[in-house]
Amino acid sequence: MECCDSVCLIKDGWFREINDMWPGHYFALKVDSVLSCVKSDYQDIMVLKTTNHGNALILDGVIQCTEKDEFAYQEMIAFLPLCSHPNPERVLIVGGGDGGVAREVDKHPLVKKIVQIEIDQKVIDASKKYLPNMAKGFNSSKLELKVCDGFEYMKCHKNEFDVIITDSTDPIGPASALFSESYFSLLKGALRSGGIICSQGGTAWNDIETVKKTLDHCRRHFKEVRYENMFV
Amino acid sequence: MECCDSVCLIKDGWFREINDMWPGHYFALKVDSVLSCVKSDYQDIMVLKTTNHGNALILDGVIQCTEKDEFAYQEMIAFLPLCSHPNPERVLIVGGGDGGVAREVDKHPLVKKIVQIEIDQKVIDASKKYLPNMAKGFNSSKLELKVCDGFEYMKCHKNEFDVIITDSTDPIGPASALFSESYFSLLKGALRSGGIICSQGGTAWNDIETVKKTLDHCRRHFKEVRYENMFV
Repeated sequence: MECCDSVCLIKDGWFREINDMWPGHYFALKVDSVLSCVKSDYQDIMVLKTTNHGNALILDGVIQCTEKDEFAYQEMIAFLPLCSHPNPERVLIVGGGDGGVAREVDKHPLVKKIVQIEIDQKVIDASKKYLPNMAKGFNSSKLELKVCDGFEYMKCHKNEFDVIITDSTDPIGPASALFSESYFSLLKGALRSGGIICSQGGTAWNDIETVKKTLDHCRRHFKEVRYENMFV
Repeated sequence: MECCDSVCLIKDGWFREINDMWPGHYFALKVDSVLSCVKSDYQDIMVLKTTNHGNALILDGVIQCTEKDEFAYQEMIAFLPLCSHPNPERVLIVGGGDGGVAREVDKHPLVKKIVQIEIDQKVIDASKKYLPNMAKGFNSSKLELKVCDGFEYMKCHKNEFDVIITDSTDPIGPASALFSESYFSLLKGALRSGGIICSQGGTAWNDIETVKKTLDHCRRHFKEVRYENMFV
């Protein structure tokens, strides 16, 4: 998708999240102004100032978060696995380029070390500039941030983490590999014994087939698998 | 709202649920055709054939249900109170003009009698014609359907029901009284000892103030009050 395509999703002052992933319906946000629209090596990155939801990060035309309600997602994807583990000392975050998950993981008193692997430096840059309340996660003294490919990183880091959180985009573009079975196999290999993973798994109402497939992948590699919902 | 206003919410083949109750965002459904659009004494009633969500009932420009996902709402609002009561013999439904709640309540083996009070005959008529899988609730042999005002009915029927379910529209138009404190006082009076109510209470993300106010009203009249979410 070219950058101009994202801007073209704005019509009559509304950004319309029209996408083939959810045919027949869309969600729209009223736009005050376009703060930024750049094209990285991986995706189209747009930041909107909305009238009622604060600033919104849009990747490849899909809303990733808005300042108004991002806490609901970040808190859930971070604290479900952290609070399910007796001693989550070492945490890996894959994705999460807005910094919001790092901000939440940093708060857990038993976490000593956070490694974050984000593939797209331009998402980090846009978030630091326009989403400062999320990007403050990058200031965590526990954090080691690496701009590289999560697949490649995990191939060389086995048996290292108590919790791994995948905060990915939807299964198109750069994140599609993060929904494959080989990804969940890599996650298992990077975990210490007793480790827990928590991954963005899609929305059942939008694409039940992807959710089912992802759960099947997980069940092949993990003893206990659960699907949790958060509505924003 | 005049009937033509509802149709005007359709643009470029999309019905856009634009409403002052949720400023700054809206949800949209792709429309195949407008099956019906009539104005009753109470509200503007439109039924759309959508491309991916089956037929959709729209009252005063607000989506009430779609055939694709209505079960999630109907099952929850019916079975939460029914399964929380040891012997829900007599059930009152206020609203629910599409018939979906009656369909679910009928399934509970301990329910002997259902009284339903719907104010708008034209909603019942439209549902029978265009939403037959919901309107089959009106065929329940346990059901006594009355087209009248729920407030007036309950003033004359005290201490009669084990469970009362309010399946209302949002707090504008004919349903606004169903969010007032005096309504919850009436509900309590119509309940038998040990009775349970379950009411559509709005969406926290859209209008937290209405949700808080409704919960406050409930707490004044009931010992135990809970707020449950269903995302469709």
